[in-house]
Amino acid sequence: MAVVAKWMCDRDNSMFDNKKDADAYDKMLELAEGFSALLQQHIPDVDETKAEEFGIFLAKNKEAIMQACKGRVEALEEIDSQAIDNVRPLSAQAS
Amino acid sequence: MAVVAKWMCDRDNSMFDNKKDADAYDKMLELAEGFSALLQQHIPDVDETKAEEFGIFLAKNKEAIMQACKGRVEALEEIDSQAIDNVRPLSAQAS
Repeated sequence: MAVVAKWMCDRDNSMFDNKKDADAYDKMLELAEGFSALLQQHIPDVDETKAEEFGIFLAKNKEAIMQACKGRVEALEEIDSQAIDNVRPLSAQAS
Repeated sequence: MAVVAKWMCDRDNSMFDNKKDADAYDKMLELAEGFSALLQQHIPDVDETKAEEFGIFLAKNKEAIMQACKGRVEALEEIDSQAIDNVRPLSAQAS
């Protein structure tokens, strides 16, 4: 038997084997929450779970968003549709 | 009487006195449409006008979004609430 170090992101209790991945995930969720909050401010009647998922989608694709903001708008269209399928609600990730 | 050059953005027929401003506005609307399209893909039942307005809001605040994507997430919270009030639907801008 051995004791193994794990890292938990306390935003949703996700577990990671190394601190770097946990930090990256935490930062992604922080950005996602920022986007979700903006969306909910602007469209108050939006479904909360869907707003969270959309925030995570934007955060996971921040490289494309930065490119688009710099002028290459088509970067948004190039976001792999697989990325959409990979988005999971926070509740599912936390379980 | 004189003939004066004007520039029109053909996305919504907005008029400008100089090409630079018209180009900047056109680019902003292009980015806004990209964001709105992503939102509508993810949340198909979102109100179309609200999705357009949210896209314009994000596009007008692309500097804050880029900062947030680079790691300074609080930039999203710092977006002036006035900016929210300044967002007009495309239909209103076109008139």
